[in-house]
Amino acid sequence: MRNFLFILRFDGGAYHGWQIQKDARTVQEVFQTALGKLLPGNLEIKGCSRTDAGVHANMYCASVKSESQIPCERLKMAVNSYLPGDLAVFECQEVPENFHARYSCTGKEYVYKIWNSPVREPFLRGRALHYWHPLDVERLHFAAQNFVGQHNFSAFCTKDQRGEMNMTRTVNYFEVEREGNLVTMRVLANGYLYNMVRIMVGTLLEVASGRRCPEDILSVLKSRDRALAGPTAVPHGLYLNRVFYHKLEMGVIC
Amino acid sequence: MRNFLFILRFDGGAYHGWQIQKDARTVQEVFQTALGKLLPGNLEIKGCSRTDAGVHANMYCASVKSESQIPCERLKMAVNSYLPGDLAVFECQEVPENFHARYSCTGKEYVYKIWNSPVREPFLRGRALHYWHPLDVERLHFAAQNFVGQHNFSAFCTKDQRGEMNMTRTVNYFEVEREGNLVTMRVLANGYLYNMVRIMVGTLLEVASGRRCPEDILSVLKSRDRALAGPTAVPHGLYLNRVFYHKLEMGVIC
Repeated sequence: MRNFLFILRFDGGAYHGWQIQKDARTVQEVFQTALGKLLPGNLEIKGCSRTDAGVHANMYCASVKSESQIPCERLKMAVNSYLPGDLAVFECQEVPENFHARYSCTGKEYVYKIWNSPVREPFLRGRALHYWHPLDVERLHFAAQNFVGQHNFSAFCTKDQRGEMNMTRTVNYFEVEREGNLVTMRVLANGYLYNMVRIMVGTLLEVASGRRCPEDILSVLKSRDRALAGPTAVPHGLYLNRVFYHKLEMGVIC
Repeated sequence: MRNFLFILRFDGGAYHGWQIQKDARTVQEVFQTALGKLLPGNLEIKGCSRTDAGVHANMYCASVKSESQIPCERLKMAVNSYLPGDLAVFECQEVPENFHARYSCTGKEYVYKIWNSPVREPFLRGRALHYWHPLDVERLHFAAQNFVGQHNFSAFCTKDQRGEMNMTRTVNYFEVEREGNLVTMRVLANGYLYNMVRIMVGTLLEVASGRRCPEDILSVLKSRDRALAGPTAVPHGLYLNRVFYHKLEMGVIC
């Protein structure tokens, strides 16, 4: 049995996230349909994470086991020929049998893009949050440092998941940068609760607007109360940007 | 009477070019409808150029005369509120009465984007030509230098316009650069014939593929025969990037 790792990139605008759902177009379903034309049998595709409807990915990892003897490079090109224009396989490689796109993952980097100008940017329509008022990037970055470290992120999780599991995550960094009118937030964590990045961004934007002070972040974290955090920022500014694995489990350096 | 200059940006994917047509959505029509809600009377909007269906603009200039006393900044924000997400006004300024977005124009820079990789880029879908085989950018740049200077460009013009007018244009520069997988062609000329940039690009791609040698460009130019040039490259790689005016006619430095 071979274990294939696929690295995908997709514009999430026309997808209801990764995971297969009834009556909704999802990345997993479209990918599985294409792959099914090339690999025989029932495919169990493991994705590195669920993603919300409308969220994009610069790098998304999925693994699947198959007895097919097709070479990786040929498989990559063939599956691309069956995929629509908003979804592509960038890499396909064979990984050890114990590799699992989700459980072997050690960290994921998300990027959140904000177009910060009174005038919208037509080429970022559906690809960044449009925020009119000038953002103080230093203030945002300062506030975001409160997320760094190991915390219980219950306050930054949509209800569905609360109480189900361990709510502690470790944020390695949370950086806020500006390049012209484009403000980018970049966060690396070992895992994320449901909607966690979007609620962190929504809360930071309340710091930006002056509705909160930067130190509020810490007291919201401590409260573990979702009601005290800010709103969930729109999905279309969010990109899964990088996925990290133990080198040993990958069998290669990723 | 005041003369307003509007600087627009648009994703041309859902437009049949600038100019108003029956039964087709065009940039001029959508812009005129929005502007008509703010400026009274019959508006005669002058665009800096026709553009083909699907062509984009990072900068497109249009001028219109009106007796309205509305301040430019307020007019800009108000018209943006009536425009769809794929079209925005970046600047609105008052210019001298003799300014005309088309006739006062001294040059226009177009950019043509090519995604040069076996794997397509989902985020450039409809925004760049996807070209699989490796492009030799130095060879392309070398060949493109044959376009620079004053030439009769009849061979690089779709029939409709041939014989109607002066077919001589001056190309100031034609640069080809690579940044990773993205190859960008950048051309500045004092004017363009119908489909001129797209035919130049289509011909250069035949140089890239080895079907032509770089020196062919000069003999095609001399032939004045459209049949000897290459195909018309797809519109969705093309962007009107900058528009230049005499400073005196602008009344300002643009």
